[in-house]
Amino acid sequence: MLTREDNETLTRTDEGTPMGEVMRRYWLPALLASELPEPDCPPIRVKLLGEQLVAFRDTEGKVGLLSEFCPHRMTSLFFGRNEESGLRCVYHGWKFDVSGNCLDMMNEPSDSDYPSKIKTTSYPVVEMGDLIWTYMGPEEKQPPLPKFEWTQVPESHRLVTKNWQECNWLQALEGGIDTAHAPILHRRISDTTKRPGISISTNLVKGEAPSLEVDRTDYGYRYAGIRDIGEKGNLIRGYHYVMPSHQLRPLQFGLQGQEPRQLIAGHVWVPMDDENCMVYNWVYNFGGQPLTDGDREEEIQLGRGPGEVLPDFRTRRNKSNDWMIDRQVQKTETFTGIEGINIQDQAIQESMGPIADRTKENLSASDLAIVIARRMLIGAASTVADGGDPPGTGDSYYNVRAIDGILPKDVDWKDALESQMYPH
Amino acid sequence: MLTREDNETLTRTDEGTPMGEVMRRYWLPALLASELPEPDCPPIRVKLLGEQLVAFRDTEGKVGLLSEFCPHRMTSLFFGRNEESGLRCVYHGWKFDVSGNCLDMMNEPSDSDYPSKIKTTSYPVVEMGDLIWTYMGPEEKQPPLPKFEWTQVPESHRLVTKNWQECNWLQALEGGIDTAHAPILHRRISDTTKRPGISISTNLVKGEAPSLEVDRTDYGYRYAGIRDIGEKGNLIRGYHYVMPSHQLRPLQFGLQGQEPRQLIAGHVWVPMDDENCMVYNWVYNFGGQPLTDGDREEEIQLGRGPGEVLPDFRTRRNKSNDWMIDRQVQKTETFTGIEGINIQDQAIQESMGPIADRTKENLSASDLAIVIARRMLIGAASTVADGGDPPGTGDSYYNVRAIDGILPKDVDWKDALESQMYPH
Amino acid sequence: MLTREDNETLTRTDEGTPMGEVMRRYWLPALLASELPEPDCPPIRVKLLGEQLVAFRDTEGKVGLLSEFCPHRMTSLFFGRNEESGLRCVYHGWKFDVSGNCLDMMNEPSDSDYPSKIKTTSYPVVEMGDLIWTYMGPEEKQPPLPKFEWTQVPESHRLVTKNWQECNWLQALEGGIDTAHAPILHRRISDTTKRPGISISTNLVKGEAPSLEVDRTDYGYRYAGIRDIGEKGNLIRGYHYVMPSHQLRPLQFGLQGQEPRQLIAGHVWVPMDDENCMVYNWVYNFGGQPLTDGDREEEIQLGRGPGEVLPDFRTRRNKSNDWMIDRQVQKTETFTGIEGINIQDQAIQESMGPIADRTKENLSASDLAIVIARRMLIGAASTVADGGDPPGTGDSYYNVRAIDGILPKDVDWKDALESQMYPH
Repeated sequence: MLTREDNETLTRTDEGTPMGEVMRRYWLPALLASELPEPDCPPIRVKLLGEQLVAFRDTEGKVGLLSEFCPHRMTSLFFGRNEESGLRCVYHGWKFDVSGNCLDMMNEPSDSDYPSKIKTTSYPVVEMGDLIWTYMGPEEKQPPLPKFEWTQVPESHRLVTKNWQECNWLQALEGGIDTAHAPILHRRISDTTKRPGISISTNLVKGEAPSLEVDRTDYGYRYAGIRDIGEKGNLIRGYHYVMPSHQLRPLQFGLQGQEPRQLIAGHVWVPMDDENCMVYNWVYNFGGQPLTDGDREEEIQLGRGPGEVLPDFRTRRNKSNDWMIDRQVQKTETFTGIEGINIQDQAIQESMGPIADRTKENLSASDLAIVIARRMLIGAASTVADGGDPPGTGDSYYNVRAIDGILPKDVDWKDALESQMYPH
Repeated sequence: MLTREDNETLTRTDEGTPMGEVMRRYWLPALLASELPEPDCPPIRVKLLGEQLVAFRDTEGKVGLLSEFCPHRMTSLFFGRNEESGLRCVYHGWKFDVSGNCLDMMNEPSDSDYPSKIKTTSYPVVEMGDLIWTYMGPEEKQPPLPKFEWTQVPESHRLVTKNWQECNWLQALEGGIDTAHAPILHRRISDTTKRPGISISTNLVKGEAPSLEVDRTDYGYRYAGIRDIGEKGNLIRGYHYVMPSHQLRPLQFGLQGQEPRQLIAGHVWVPMDDENCMVYNWVYNFGGQPLTDGDREEEIQLGRGPGEVLPDFRTRRNKSNDWMIDRQVQKTETFTGIEGINIQDQAIQESMGPIADRTKENLSASDLAIVIARRMLIGAASTVADGGDPPGTGDSYYNVRAIDGILPKDVDWKDALESQMYPH
Repeated sequence: MLTREDNETLTRTDEGTPMGEVMRRYWLPALLASELPEPDCPPIRVKLLGEQLVAFRDTEGKVGLLSEFCPHRMTSLFFGRNEESGLRCVYHGWKFDVSGNCLDMMNEPSDSDYPSKIKTTSYPVVEMGDLIWTYMGPEEKQPPLPKFEWTQVPESHRLVTKNWQECNWLQALEGGIDTAHAPILHRRISDTTKRPGISISTNLVKGEAPSLEVDRTDYGYRYAGIRDIGEKGNLIRGYHYVMPSHQLRPLQFGLQGQEPRQLIAGHVWVPMDDENCMVYNWVYNFGGQPLTDGDREEEIQLGRGPGEVLPDFRTRRNKSNDWMIDRQVQKTETFTGIEGINIQDQAIQESMGPIADRTKENLSASDLAIVIARRMLIGAASTVADGGDPPGTGDSYYNVRAIDGILPKDVDWKDALESQMYPH
């Protein structure tokens, strides 16, 4: 349970808000690299932390991320001409390069020096891990590049998708760092159903409610959901939370009873505005192997991906159609009657309303990771307001892996999994 | 004409508003009983006085009306599993009975006593007259059950429907207690048209504008529209207004020139929020007879019912399509060109905007019933604020019937119709 | 660049706002005369300066423009019966003539004198130039009728259309008095394309960016875009801005390389509310000739008109579909990839958002006409607030023509074009 003030602090990310200033201290995914497939392709709109932006790839292949509105008279540059190393406003022909410099003005004499005096808002970008990342904070505070292991492996070893979620970013993040719900929300309730979900016969489902342990670090924390599975010992699922909104979760066991694989998956939740966020979903093989077609299919079609995605990145199963819940399926096949693991997450997160009212919560021991993430975020807001650097702006997270395993009951997961969770 | 302040007082019903506190002192229809057709059927959403609720029927057939949002982390219980005597949130498996008690938590150890400490908002309900009624006020102030005669007759003697109206409840109620408009708004202007409406040849249409007399009571008031129909005497239509938003109107004469029948009809207008209300429409035979198929058809198809209703209870003829007005029909067949008596009412009520601006009104003598209802409601707001009980929280209305008849001009309707309007 | 306060002053036109009081001192187009095609035809809704109105044509052919809401109980008169020299509310039968006088009340005794005491808001109208104009200001301040030359020529010599634009009126007006954008925004980039646009071979496109000169008058100003076209001299396009929101532009040269014609075109932008305006588009032959079929087709189909218009006067190419921009056409045929000259204007004006944020602008020398119009409008707001009359409320503009021509470089356009721009 939070005070109304803390809930406001945590959820608002427009420019000038405390959490907005925190968010602006990190590299954030702005779009998929594939949304700008080639030089001089059409520009696209990007909404980020409440700011309306336009992204384009210039003739040399460089990506620019500018304020959507031309600084002359506020026309949208989304309609601009992407031509000869710059994006040109169609109204009076003002042309900008990827750094926001004005190169030309068609409504000025050709010898005018006015272009050299005009610069539009531009954010630095880097293309990494199939994504275009941007940094929207003070220049002198720019952190190291987002070299998560998943952004560094070859493209063939990785799959990245995205989808628009119609709720505040925080309740989406909280769903992601909440390991307790997995064998409940995502449960299959039939042995024979083929629908995506966690099999009733897995240790995850058969185990008790997990106990949760959080190990704070300088990038956020690692934590484990610990489930007593009887004689075999404890089932440990070891996650990472990297500030401000990255989740890394183990996929070695798989969820449907397959052979163990060297996979790790995760999400990044990026605020579009206070009532919408973009979810980036990724999975990669950390064992040096490419993803198989089966891996890719599973992530997209079989439920851990967003399922069918509309051209604006909304999912076809969405809030306006109650995520196409099927009450008969809910009676006999899956716990929710909603198709797809990610859609199940999205549904319950969006069902809380645009911004969850945390003043009425009653938290449980299994919400420990969430409680600590909130504390770290509120702490970061104070730190930044006082001129300091928030956690996770170094490079310590370059090294993290999410790992699951079964350990004897008397073994501390933090020690036992140390070398696997921090391999280098 | 009202001051802006009085208009606000009368129209706002969220928790904590003066009129909201009045509304919370009565049993109110929350849904049709048929919306929860059987034990363990899917839960449904209910919006009432600005509160978002979820209704479900448990394994034993008992109905629960809970806050929509799970008190754990605010997930919507609309997506809950209705199973084994409780509604279970799909996120972490918290399960609630119809009284709001938490029975189980799947994210807690099985021996945890946390469930016993959690209770969610729950409102008492009663199933009566094909409706599920709820009481949302202080426990110690709960009034007697809503034993209107129409809720007590056998189901075969009664028809109840509902539809969503896109305007504030008060302008809908005011339309309902306004007898003057009936032979104007609902008039047929052709002898031959078969469209629903009041025949041009009826006394109601042929008579002068009515004079209105209101007789205040402890439940609200009874009132009559008195129309001089010449030698035959006065046509009296005797209505009741039962606080806070019940109308009872006589249907003995019928409106299309049929033989007199022992029918009474009415509405209840229930605020969903300040700009939407749900209208419950009922008719019953008070003479001990079941409704005929003709009665039922007339009420639904022939215009006194809402006509075609969409799955969300909006009418197909609605504000977004100007209630499908046909200007040619308006020229030659009916006064409005809008099909259906109830839809005509709905159209003019919704056409005033979400909340009618009563500061610009110019009232007429025929608005007397409306003026007095407003005064009683504002009075009730003061009474409740001062710790008292508003009118209509006793059982005096159990006894009321709406009656029409023709009386000699020198007879006072209040005396002459006393025994029919209060038969027991 | 404007202060936030000035931007508010300029853009808000509800009753009681400074610019609203300015707007209410002029005759404004309220609707096309053809929207009320015959006596006793259906009434229509009109939104003007934030006021909700209803227009009707009575049995005698006279037009009334009344408040939409019946002064009795606020029912919309849009649903009224237009019958026997008045518009009758369907709720209680109150009937109003075109001047707003109440003629009859069906809920009052037939000898009641209440009707004579009721008058509803009514604005005077005049039918002129295929339009119905209204004056919404103080009676004693009513200016001379809007006798622009284009409203006075025979109907056969004129074409008038309208379309709804989803943005504030001012950014639309500013687009209209901005001559600099024409050869940029509307440019064809191919010699062979047949799409509407300004040919790449015209002087307008080949010339340099224009210099702008503004000549202030008592009705607004005349101004010229002056383009050096080399040996031939200067290309002069002489416009007029007539307060508060009329543009007149020369069409003698045509834009696609045709023979010169005696045509003048223009727009009037009328605020519906602060985020929507209605654009009236007109063209006429000032040489005493009717428009040819070719002229009419060009204005509507070939791009200077609004193209396909939906029944509510929104254009089919509109904000919701990004004006159907075709990125391939933008690469190879036209500067914008958006079809139609007027739609190109509409697109860039609407792309600025509902109300352009002028606090972030960087104006150019070619924005001179816009700067002066803003100053005159803000000046007019002060003048009106001080009890004076704003510019353009006399009849001096009756006489204006927009003219283009080529002049020797040493000739002052103001002198040289004086007799053509003010012919009488």
